[in-house]
Amino acid sequence: MQVEDIDMINDSKNPSPAHLLDPSPEQIRSWANAAVELMAEYLGTIRNRRVYPYTSSRQIRERLDSSLPKEPVNFDELLHTFRSTLIELSRHNGHPRMFGYVQAPGTAIAAFADLLSSTLNANLTAWRSAPAAVEIERLTIDWIKQIIGFDRDAAGLFVSGGSMANMAALAAARRAKAPPEIQNKGAQSCAKALRVYASEETHHTVAKAAALLGIGHDNVRLISVDERYKINLHELVAAIEEDRTAGHLPICVVANAGTVATGAFDPLSQIGEIARRFNLWLHVDGAYGGFAALAPSARPLFASIGEADSVALDPHKWLYLPVDCGCILYRDPEAARATFAHEAEYTRVIGQEADEAFAFWDYGPELSRRFRALIVWMLLKGVGLQALSEAIEKDLACARHFETLVQNSEDFEMLAPVELSIFCSRHLPAGLKRALAAASPSVREKIEEQLDAHNERLLLALQRDGSSYLSNARLRGRFSLRGCVMNYRTTLRDMEILLDDLRRVAAQL
Amino acid sequence: MQVEDIDMINDSKNPSPAHLLDPSPEQIRSWANAAVELMAEYLGTIRNRRVYPYTSSRQIRERLDSSLPKEPVNFDELLHTFRSTLIELSRHNGHPRMFGYVQAPGTAIAAFADLLSSTLNANLTAWRSAPAAVEIERLTIDWIKQIIGFDRDAAGLFVSGGSMANMAALAAARRAKAPPEIQNKGAQSCAKALRVYASEETHHTVAKAAALLGIGHDNVRLISVDERYKINLHELVAAIEEDRTAGHLPICVVANAGTVATGAFDPLSQIGEIARRFNLWLHVDGAYGGFAALAPSARPLFASIGEADSVALDPHKWLYLPVDCGCILYRDPEAARATFAHEAEYTRVIGQEADEAFAFWDYGPELSRRFRALIVWMLLKGVGLQALSEAIEKDLACARHFETLVQNSEDFEMLAPVELSIFCSRHLPAGLKRALAAASPSVREKIEEQLDAHNERLLLALQRDGSSYLSNARLRGRFSLRGCVMNYRTTLRDMEILLDDLRRVAAQL
Repeated sequence: MQVEDIDMINDSKNPSPAHLLDPSPEQIRSWANAAVELMAEYLGTIRNRRVYPYTSSRQIRERLDSSLPKEPVNFDELLHTFRSTLIELSRHNGHPRMFGYVQAPGTAIAAFADLLSSTLNANLTAWRSAPAAVEIERLTIDWIKQIIGFDRDAAGLFVSGGSMANMAALAAARRAKAPPEIQNKGAQSCAKALRVYASEETHHTVAKAAALLGIGHDNVRLISVDERYKINLHELVAAIEEDRTAGHLPICVVANAGTVATGAFDPLSQIGEIARRFNLWLHVDGAYGGFAALAPSARPLFASIGEADSVALDPHKWLYLPVDCGCILYRDPEAARATFAHEAEYTRVIGQEADEAFAFWDYGPELSRRFRALIVWMLLKGVGLQALSEAIEKDLACARHFETLVQNSEDFEMLAPVELSIFCSRHLPAGLKRALAAASPSVREKIEEQLDAHNERLLLALQRDGSSYLSNARLRGRFSLRGCVMNYRTTLRDMEILLDDLRRVAAQL
Repeated sequence: MQVEDIDMINDSKNPSPAHLLDPSPEQIRSWANAAVELMAEYLGTIRNRRVYPYTSSRQIRERLDSSLPKEPVNFDELLHTFRSTLIELSRHNGHPRMFGYVQAPGTAIAAFADLLSSTLNANLTAWRSAPAAVEIERLTIDWIKQIIGFDRDAAGLFVSGGSMANMAALAAARRAKAPPEIQNKGAQSCAKALRVYASEETHHTVAKAAALLGIGHDNVRLISVDERYKINLHELVAAIEEDRTAGHLPICVVANAGTVATGAFDPLSQIGEIARRFNLWLHVDGAYGGFAALAPSARPLFASIGEADSVALDPHKWLYLPVDCGCILYRDPEAARATFAHEAEYTRVIGQEADEAFAFWDYGPELSRRFRALIVWMLLKGVGLQALSEAIEKDLACARHFETLVQNSEDFEMLAPVELSIFCSRHLPAGLKRALAAASPSVREKIEEQLDAHNERLLLALQRDGSSYLSNARLRGRFSLRGCVMNYRTTLRDMEILLDDLRRVAAQL
């Protein structure tokens, strides 16, 4: 044995570079202990942190060593940076009063699933590349279909999130409802403009997908909403008829199973009837609200989900999983296959007798695919649906509790009804409230603008304060403080603390 | 305190469902110990496993409990299934003789990074949502630019893989080189067919992206290759000129920085000159070969990478990271921003003075984005470029070693030159070899077909044997045994074992 070899073995503090790529079991255990202590400490103290740090790009960059790392640094140093810079200068999405956007906390059990998934490093391109992992994905997709009450013969797969799920759905809608030669010859081979319909409350990823696909951003016709922010059905029908008369080609209507601004749930049954009448693809965007199907109080909204041709869901939202776990379901798997299968391979037979010939790339845009299904499987098996159902129901109850608190208050008002777990309100200081009540219509708008400006200042001050975090929405022109409860850690008491925080911060403005 | 509360606290074997979603630090440590033992055991024994299991869809499903999981099972049971079903019935991508496709092993340090990333659950939509994590992504993208020698003013981001990177590049090419109203009005607003050029060895994700984008699959013109499988430049020029004459609109040429069949590297400098001459976007697909820039022996191939308008790279390939870490770089960030930024927001100022206004969604197709940069940062910092450079150079040496072994053999022959780490060969049994040497041209094809059939049987038998794993390629009509070395565990000795395995298995056919 060479002297260097002995050095290499004994000097565990300075392992050879090759050992850093392929560490010994002892080295793995040592790294693991340090990483897990950091994890346990972080999750154990998350409630006590400020939700949001106040920092700048420059400040963070000054803390990071920007030089190209030629030589290795030790693992403890990496964890030190993670602790002192990454944790300190991050928004804490798992904090019980993180109410901004549509943001889930993640789950410890899923973090372990991701550890194991990256250890195995299965690549779920096709069955033969990852036999057991592909079966876990099929199984968890089947569970998701059962959870929302979708067609048992449907197919689907995990994608990175709602953007990709909506894009995949629009691509499948185009393949099914527009001339099929668009895929080979290009969209200019169809002289008509393809038209997609969605309410003006629909997430902008739908229009972005239409732009990317060559359908065109403006060919997504945004239909107005009613007083509950649900799509106006008469206007939807009129728009479709108008487009047909104008020589356009309607292909798809998008229904929201929970809009991101207010949580409005479009009437699936009636939209389904309109889609059938005009031979349109019905896509349901349930990225935010889809898993509310697990909550008994929201379940009735999903009664007609079976009408949909495709459904976008985000397990990384209301299944509390870490980001990058979206899902697209297609009622007719062949419609997806016609969209995504590579021409030369389209003739292959798949089905019960040829499960091993299955390839996910035939059903979605990606080729290499990480083992997203493992976090879903480990969460559903390890926590159980009953607990998830209770946690989601509790999130709904939190939003309703806040609505009640506001309705019983003198100094706040709701700007939209609570349908799922999103609550939109604004602060009404006594002076402005009185002025508004007494105002003539011509003065009213001016006071409203003062209220907008006041609430915008309040939002920024709340975020800076750090005890609670809300984001905002513009509702019928008015600035709204918008919150979304999507966290198993959030309690009814947290909603009361939020209102207290708002009052405390407002008093300091 | 209620009796149930006491039960809940004391009976750690049966924690309440809420505790499963938000476990105590003690519970986290207990889960961690079990998960890490599994990880250490798996990685410590990976060399001794069969690369590939022989199993069926039915067999796996029989081992999995398919019932919807209403009640939780304990963590040890989940790990038991992971060990007994997932590990046992998976292809082991980290095995030193896994030579199939373009598959990386993953790295233990990255698995810990994924654990931490899923614990923090940062969502890298925009700077304000994940300040420190966004800075880590910017920093690692900057390092990648330096590694391949790309423009320092370029921008980029991590995406799920080569499919998404190539799609983003084609979308940016269209925005830059075709009428911009396509994004709003749809592709039918441009009467001309948009044309993209790439060699026939180009990965089919390029044509798939063109189909999705509405450019059309057939509008990717596949140019023939020379004897080294590099694009024929004369034919490229002729095709562009022909299309212009025919009234089409050439927009983009795709150059391969390593094709997936043979590892051919298209001549970037000359293609860059042609792209400039015809005002085309130059996209370099370096998903397989891009990080070979770290190996001194491959570095000269990258001399003209700065000519490219966009580059697709896969850190989840030759940076040995777990899947779902692709990367797209754009030389002109504004070209990307014009493609992906939402119309209404396009007027926002960004730049040095407004780093905090930065949003990744303005530069790529996704909105929610997991913290992919952490695995890149932790690997580059924790292992260091020197060790990675040596590992990649060693992978190249392994492929060259196999080529030499084959060239010095009587019973195998190379079907393509080794350029990077891909090696394509076939078995030439003595009888068929003699017959081929003596054959007239008319008989030759028949013998070739026998050789194809023989090598196909050999491949399947090798995969079933389990000691080494190759995949296949069709090269000028001939069936090739194809291998790719992309693993820090693989040694020169493994290449000799592979050849021994092939001979042993061939003898049993």
